[in-house]
Amino acid sequence: MAGGPVLQGSRRTSMYIAFSPTRPRWHLIASEPDRTFMSRIVCKFGGTSVADIDRIQATADRVKSIVDEGNQVAVVVSAMSGTTDQLISWTREIAAVHDAREYDVVLASGEQVTIGLLALALQSLGVSARSWLGWQLPIRTDGAHSSALIQDFSADGPAACLDKHEVAIVAGFQGIGPDGRLTTLGRGGSDLTAVALAAALGADRCDIFTDVDGVYTADPRIVAKARKLDKITYEEMLEMASQGAKVLQTRSVELAMTQRVRLQVRSSFNDTSGTFVVDEDEILEQEVVSGIAYSRDEAKITLLNVADRPGVAARVFGPLANAAVNVDMIVQSASEDGGSTDITFTLDRAHLDKALSVLEQEKSAIGHGGALADSNVVKVSVIGVGMRSHAGVAARMFETLAERGINILVISTSEIKVSVLIEEEYAELALRALHSAYGLDAI
Amino acid sequence: MAGGPVLQGSRRTSMYIAFSPTRPRWHLIASEPDRTFMSRIVCKFGGTSVADIDRIQATADRVKSIVDEGNQVAVVVSAMSGTTDQLISWTREIAAVHDAREYDVVLASGEQVTIGLLALALQSLGVSARSWLGWQLPIRTDGAHSSALIQDFSADGPAACLDKHEVAIVAGFQGIGPDGRLTTLGRGGSDLTAVALAAALGADRCDIFTDVDGVYTADPRIVAKARKLDKITYEEMLEMASQGAKVLQTRSVELAMTQRVRLQVRSSFNDTSGTFVVDEDEILEQEVVSGIAYSRDEAKITLLNVADRPGVAARVFGPLANAAVNVDMIVQSASEDGGSTDITFTLDRAHLDKALSVLEQEKSAIGHGGALADSNVVKVSVIGVGMRSHAGVAARMFETLAERGINILVISTSEIKVSVLIEEEYAELALRALHSAYGLDAI
Repeated sequence: MAGGPVLQGSRRTSMYIAFSPTRPRWHLIASEPDRTFMSRIVCKFGGTSVADIDRIQATADRVKSIVDEGNQVAVVVSAMSGTTDQLISWTREIAAVHDAREYDVVLASGEQVTIGLLALALQSLGVSARSWLGWQLPIRTDGAHSSALIQDFSADGPAACLDKHEVAIVAGFQGIGPDGRLTTLGRGGSDLTAVALAAALGADRCDIFTDVDGVYTADPRIVAKARKLDKITYEEMLEMASQGAKVLQTRSVELAMTQRVRLQVRSSFNDTSGTFVVDEDEILEQEVVSGIAYSRDEAKITLLNVADRPGVAARVFGPLANAAVNVDMIVQSASEDGGSTDITFTLDRAHLDKALSVLEQEKSAIGHGGALADSNVVKVSVIGVGMRSHAGVAARMFETLAERGINILVISTSEIKVSVLIEEEYAELALRALHSAYGLDAI
Repeated sequence: MAGGPVLQGSRRTSMYIAFSPTRPRWHLIASEPDRTFMSRIVCKFGGTSVADIDRIQATADRVKSIVDEGNQVAVVVSAMSGTTDQLISWTREIAAVHDAREYDVVLASGEQVTIGLLALALQSLGVSARSWLGWQLPIRTDGAHSSALIQDFSADGPAACLDKHEVAIVAGFQGIGPDGRLTTLGRGGSDLTAVALAAALGADRCDIFTDVDGVYTADPRIVAKARKLDKITYEEMLEMASQGAKVLQTRSVELAMTQRVRLQVRSSFNDTSGTFVVDEDEILEQEVVSGIAYSRDEAKITLLNVADRPGVAARVFGPLANAAVNVDMIVQSASEDGGSTDITFTLDRAHLDKALSVLEQEKSAIGHGGALADSNVVKVSVIGVGMRSHAGVAARMFETLAERGINILVISTSEIKVSVLIEEEYAELALRALHSAYGLDAI
């Protein structure tokens, strides 16, 4: 959930804007690649795929099989699962508030271990391989430590590896800032590294290996009848990711979309085809709704008796933005007497305490009659590019929830999604009901 | 135990030679340092001093107290104790023989964690601090991965930190090779980093914080009457380290001697003065013998019925040198009939199997009648610069051992030390007897 604070709309907007001023430069390889190989593929393996020596060796076997098919392969790896959390907890144990530059030095060590071990594992299988740290490429970022943005990505070194039939193994999640210090790209940053590497290498495909088989119409742990999607559009994937689906990091989908990187989300445990994230024109028969996402990382604040006059929204949301509180959905009640109104908005649950304290500090400047907080809420979103040409999608959602007696607290829509905030206890019921209502259930 | 293979003499000779062709360049700060501070001090903390968060915080407290005395402080740290062994065991689990370049990538991650955490711990005490990785200085080394030699050490960054009253925290053990890849300096390499940093910074002192109070006349775990030395000469310390005392890495002592870095070995647990390693002329009343070292990392091979003619030593020791076997002491029996002789030599116990297999392969080329191996041996050395002006030191050693019925297997001497190889079971007896015989016992 990186990116600056934004108001109405979705978080992806802010990230999109954040990317624009310093649009990354991609050092594309100049010449047409030698086409004696099958494909040039970037493979990303997350922390569970390198969790211990056995898993690292299984990952090496998997990479070898892709190499043996005649492909040029570059690999991006995360830290061993648990390592990043351990490192974060150490930094917190030392100091609650810490220097993000030193935090990044500590965190970036995790991928350094796994790139070296994976290179050794591949070599022991007879596959030529070498590791690359972020600063060795270099992957240049801005100076926003712990959630840095990529500004310049050079893949000349890995490209030279591939050209001599060597597997290039690149550390995910890390780069080097303007002052030569280590930076990290935020949670899920290895996905971003993989997509950026695929763009820079002009790769045919970027495969994200994970512990699920692909992208599902809904979370299969909750909706038993959820189906794996063969294809999904970038726009839908972006909404799915930013509305709570954790299978891909939002910024990486955004980058894949702008750089037209063909993504595949697939299982690291089996060899079945996963879900391809592609352009809309690649999908012939588009469903109206492709998937249903949900997020528990939500909280709601209602600000009472706010003066209903111009500039009040700025006085409420300006200070929150300055405190880096991500505000998502906003509803302003109609003013009854033209004097005061209530403003309800949603935000990251993790930011709730910070937001309340900002609102308390600014109470006289804003002029409000108190803040009501609720963190027992969940956001459910139906997503599909087919909505553009089909009416009634939102209406069906409201009817379905009404039939189950589920109260809608806040509504937010975009061109290809409808999101509602509901009470948390109804989350599973709502997901299953909507999944059936839109005809998504597996037969 | 780094450095190339050598014959008669001691390992330090080889390391000394290895250093010479590419004598490191030191980027000394150009101007006379601002003398408003007390002293410029480099502090080195080993793995036990950063073993967990509590120890890191205790180390930060210690550094703060040195800063509070008005000193400029640079710190070198090792990895958390146990981390390096864990990383090594992972690389071995993957492949017995491995690419040293990737091995170095994995190993260098350990110090990256501790420099960041120590910087955070100092900051949380209100002490300004920043971390430096080897490649960020840079510390340039040759390409001998896993036991690289420093070729060029720039301390401009840390010097700028010190000048603005910031603690510079430098990762021990690591550098960057000619091709831009990470290198490590071998076991004990953080000591070397600390001494090199002290030389480059023109530091007044380099304090090596460790889990003992200083350098003792003998290992106090064996010799209860061992005394802590207030001062010891570089030459003696070098012999102590290369003859088995583990308190300081041999190469770091050598570098301190050539660069005239004033070293102190002291406890990280208390504030008492440790042992200063200094020039000979700083020690007014020199004992004949300063200390007694021992090493269990020894093995002995006797090669039977070797032809006693010119060139045979080269045929024996050439192939061993090529296999990177460190040979230490050598004895050749007098040839009885001018035809054949026996050659006995000692070597690192870890190299015994490799050496025997080389000798078996080269059996016909050398022309020997079999090799007898013995790894139940220990080397005991008495060391002191006073030997130069005092006769009878070796004789007293031989008498003392003879009185206890201890058989001497091999003898080797240098200007300031006498070493004997004896059976391992006599090690403790020999050490205590010699400690008394040279008047070293505490009263």
